[in-house]
Amino acid sequence: MKTFLALLIWCCTANLIQAQAPLPSWNDTAAKKAIVAFVEKVTTEGAPTFVPVPERIAVFDNDGTLWAEQPLYFQAFFVFDRIKALAPEHPEWQTKEPFASILKGDHKGIAAAGEKGMAAALAATHSGMTTEEFSKAVTDWITTAKHPKTGKLYTEMVYQPMLEVLAYLKSKGFKTFIVSGGGIEFMRPWTERVYGIPPEQVVGSSGKLKYELRDGIPVLVKLPEIELVDDKEGKPVGIQSHIGRRPLMAFGNSDGDLQMLQWTAAGPGNRFALLVHHTDAEREYAYDRTSHIGKLDKALDEAAAKGWTVVSMKDDWAPIFPTQK
Amino acid sequence: MKTFLALLIWCCTANLIQAQAPLPSWNDTAAKKAIVAFVEKVTTEGAPTFVPVPERIAVFDNDGTLWAEQPLYFQAFFVFDRIKALAPEHPEWQTKEPFASILKGDHKGIAAAGEKGMAAALAATHSGMTTEEFSKAVTDWITTAKHPKTGKLYTEMVYQPMLEVLAYLKSKGFKTFIVSGGGIEFMRPWTERVYGIPPEQVVGSSGKLKYELRDGIPVLVKLPEIELVDDKEGKPVGIQSHIGRRPLMAFGNSDGDLQMLQWTAAGPGNRFALLVHHTDAEREYAYDRTSHIGKLDKALDEAAAKGWTVVSMKDDWAPIFPTQK
Repeated sequence: MKTFLALLIWCCTANLIQAQAPLPSWNDTAAKKAIVAFVEKVTTEGAPTFVPVPERIAVFDNDGTLWAEQPLYFQAFFVFDRIKALAPEHPEWQTKEPFASILKGDHKGIAAAGEKGMAAALAATHSGMTTEEFSKAVTDWITTAKHPKTGKLYTEMVYQPMLEVLAYLKSKGFKTFIVSGGGIEFMRPWTERVYGIPPEQVVGSSGKLKYELRDGIPVLVKLPEIELVDDKEGKPVGIQSHIGRRPLMAFGNSDGDLQMLQWTAAGPGNRFALLVHHTDAEREYAYDRTSHIGKLDKALDEAAAKGWTVVSMKDDWAPIFPTQK
Repeated sequence: MKTFLALLIWCCTANLIQAQAPLPSWNDTAAKKAIVAFVEKVTTEGAPTFVPVPERIAVFDNDGTLWAEQPLYFQAFFVFDRIKALAPEHPEWQTKEPFASILKGDHKGIAAAGEKGMAAALAATHSGMTTEEFSKAVTDWITTAKHPKTGKLYTEMVYQPMLEVLAYLKSKGFKTFIVSGGGIEFMRPWTERVYGIPPEQVVGSSGKLKYELRDGIPVLVKLPEIELVDDKEGKPVGIQSHIGRRPLMAFGNSDGDLQMLQWTAAGPGNRFALLVHHTDAEREYAYDRTSHIGKLDKALDEAAAKGWTVVSMKDDWAPIFPTQK
């Protein structure tokens, strides 16, 4: 009898874990209720709204939705730190923009270099090396670099309530994907550890790659040409290219996510679209319609018009970050 | 006690099923033994060769590896049939190549139109519509069209021994991906039903997509520009772009798969590379170094030099197709 019980416990533990109350870091407000109600609706066997497991696809923006994005996208800090690290090999950067301003920490000079300057900085730090060399550079940085305001590791600035949404959906048979304007190769080295999302479920902006043999060893070299800008109209394109079916649920926080939410919500049957609204200046940041980073304007209007769920971080989230108790 | 037993059976059935002898349609030759030995090696807990489940990635070419590819890639028959179906809307095709030759069934004329002709036929049948319209056209065709020689549905010309490899690897915690020179959107509508491989695990050649609103309804339109030719050097690129980690096992059948096998085999630790050699003129086809379709020349030499597994369809496979008993 004892053996049977032990085997039973061993076999069924996974099912029991799922029975815990979901989303403990969410206040008991309309947003949490909307998420749970939708998930119950599509996962209740026998219900007319039931959706089979393979079609349970949920997509998440990263910057501003799963982790913070102020005062700049965290990948920009990676670019700046890489330029500082690579500067000894590039003496010409001391006088060439945007590199000179980045090396001096001159934010006005960086801003003056504009989009063309950022493209040059991106190309200098994101191409010319193999995918494995780049992955190592990201891993070294993400495990040591600290956020300029909070002094935390960037991976400590993920949102605890969203980690719980990821885990909850996974426990309900969903496959969770990141669909981010950030670089696909910048995210993959750490998303499995931090979010439980494996590299093959990460969609992001990408550059072209070239396969070649170096002394007989195959490598993939990152080229400076853009392959996909996975933002705005690019997000449904990235979803189709990588996933090949329309998501059931989509989570974003800015106008860059509008088309992803439109594409998701327009699917047949029940669909779920959610926007994270940054409303908590005290515990995180408060910004929307006029922000340079994570501007939320048109998508906020469309959410109201279409009845999408809008999360107020201040009102709907108990802790925001994992370490806030 | 009865209840406990019932629960135990319900909970553990999945584990018991895995205990059946794998690969029943494979003769007991070196190829089968090599597959099983490798899988045992990387899945035996505690062994120094053990590989954790998330890293168990296996990639499969499609044409000539999972289903037949003679006398032409099956997607070419789809192109011809679509041109016939669309001809009433295109009276100019009656006199314009390669369409005129395709409509007359003039194989010499089609061949004379060359690569430029095939590109025009591909563009005419694979772009200008939404992804959903294209998916419907593929589904209608694949469920009704018959192979010119065998009279079978194309999906009946999949290889039973390879279906068993897919199922065996899945039961051992592997994620299986198709990495094919064929069109990604041509495969996705039926790979889940036929191979148990969901759309998000299909990598293939692709065209660019454009997101737009048509009367307020979001659609993705297939454009005539090429995004990725997922063949030869393109295969490791497609693998990195879609999967983001190096496979543990790779299965191919032609020189188009050489770089995928190189990239896989060059990974650290134990890796497995296999070529299907078409050696059975009686039950399927026999071709290799001089074939126009599925040419196997350089990869066969490299397999010999590097000790990759080479399957002889005639000697290693008991039945070839699912309906041959």
